[in-house]
Amino acid sequence: MFAPEDLTQDGFLGGRLTLAQPRAGYRSAMDAVLLAAACPARAGQGVLELGCGAGVASLCLGARVPGLGLTGLEVQPAYAALARRNAAANGLVLEVVEGDLAAMPAALRARSFDQVIANPPYFAPFSGTAAADSGRETAQREATPLAVWIDAALRRLRPGGYLTLIQQAERLGDILAALPPRAGSSVVLPVAPRAGRAAGRVIVQARKGGRGPLRLLAPFVLHAAPHHAADHEDLTPEAQAILRAGAVLTLPR
Amino acid sequence: MFAPEDLTQDGFLGGRLTLAQPRAGYRSAMDAVLLAAACPARAGQGVLELGCGAGVASLCLGARVPGLGLTGLEVQPAYAALARRNAAANGLVLEVVEGDLAAMPAALRARSFDQVIANPPYFAPFSGTAAADSGRETAQREATPLAVWIDAALRRLRPGGYLTLIQQAERLGDILAALPPRAGSSVVLPVAPRAGRAAGRVIVQARKGGRGPLRLLAPFVLHAAPHHAADHEDLTPEAQAILRAGAVLTLPR
Repeated sequence: MFAPEDLTQDGFLGGRLTLAQPRAGYRSAMDAVLLAAACPARAGQGVLELGCGAGVASLCLGARVPGLGLTGLEVQPAYAALARRNAAANGLVLEVVEGDLAAMPAALRARSFDQVIANPPYFAPFSGTAAADSGRETAQREATPLAVWIDAALRRLRPGGYLTLIQQAERLGDILAALPPRAGSSVVLPVAPRAGRAAGRVIVQARKGGRGPLRLLAPFVLHAAPHHAADHEDLTPEAQAILRAGAVLTLPR
Repeated sequence: MFAPEDLTQDGFLGGRLTLAQPRAGYRSAMDAVLLAAACPARAGQGVLELGCGAGVASLCLGARVPGLGLTGLEVQPAYAALARRNAAANGLVLEVVEGDLAAMPAALRARSFDQVIANPPYFAPFSGTAAADSGRETAQREATPLAVWIDAALRRLRPGGYLTLIQQAERLGDILAALPPRAGSSVVLPVAPRAGRAAGRVIVQARKGGRGPLRLLAPFVLHAAPHHAADHEDLTPEAQAILRAGAVLTLPR
């Protein structure tokens, strides 16, 4: 468990949510909010987040779309407890299941969902230097291969349901390779720090059983100014609408 | 063979090249020129084009970079003959080998190249309506799977050499799935008809033996005006430089 002094209280969606995050552990930033914005969930649907951490993506989604059944799977007990606390503190209902997506808990194996979302770890195993914090290490490091995340997600989706994930852009090939033949009609949204720059992230959305062609959308651009001086102030209007006002990020299909 | 009345004479690169193309068959347009512009060949290098058709991409490349050894492989004898004639008529040297890339001619199997370029057919086999012209049918229709094109290309590349190809954007997943483990350090350039629109084409460049991460670049935009009224007149300055003035299309790595 995290001690109170190990946590910060961070505002999301322009202050609609206040979420506790570990000061030294894995901290969600834009990516979880963009993931939540891109999930096309409608009231009444069931949503599963794989690797929900402190619950940022699921709770941002719950704040935008009322009437969802939100479930998170988290392998680290301290993060799972934090996600539960964050939900309660913000008046949202999030069922958090502790367990490993690579050995899906029986309680989830029996269920299927309309939507699955995930923000899998970004750093390949055994590359670079280990994080000083072991919780951050687990959250950031790809102990479970990306293909296993996608397999677990597709198993939990009902036919016609959507998988939405956000990842480093460099993993696009691995993501697209893991989708067929079970999922298709994929939409790829490059997320670029600035106009004209290579994408840093991709949001990929695929439909279970989808047979339509892949669509490679125009990039979503985060920052407006050409330089990096004032990152917190120079969000594009589209990025501001999502990050500060909880707008939806529609991926045209 | 094509009869003279079956051919048109078309200008490329602002008139630097005049190339005969079948009036009713497969006609290269922007894609072959973009492919040539994106190939990072340097003087002295050997370049193989798989499925060279009437030779448009190879000859555009030869016009931009002097001192290349250009070789084209073409399965249709009438197109191979046309490519030879187009080279001679424009004072360029292009060796054209007749044969099927899926059963690589022995003369090419013994050789390797610094660069391989390809503009594989865009339409899946047995989908849509057949082209009225059987030559266009062969040039447009994917009788040979895309993975076989990429396999043939990688076999003919020297270690460290580059494969550059242009394809429908919807095939991006199939392309990226066929590259590893033999090629990597891939760069993906979405080609969009207009700013803010989904990509119609992708240019993918990969290095044989490359181990670097994939880069998803900002899109290359063809047309400037928001509407489709004046396609031939509203090219962006970047597209004009390539299509009318033979500029290089640099893919930052």
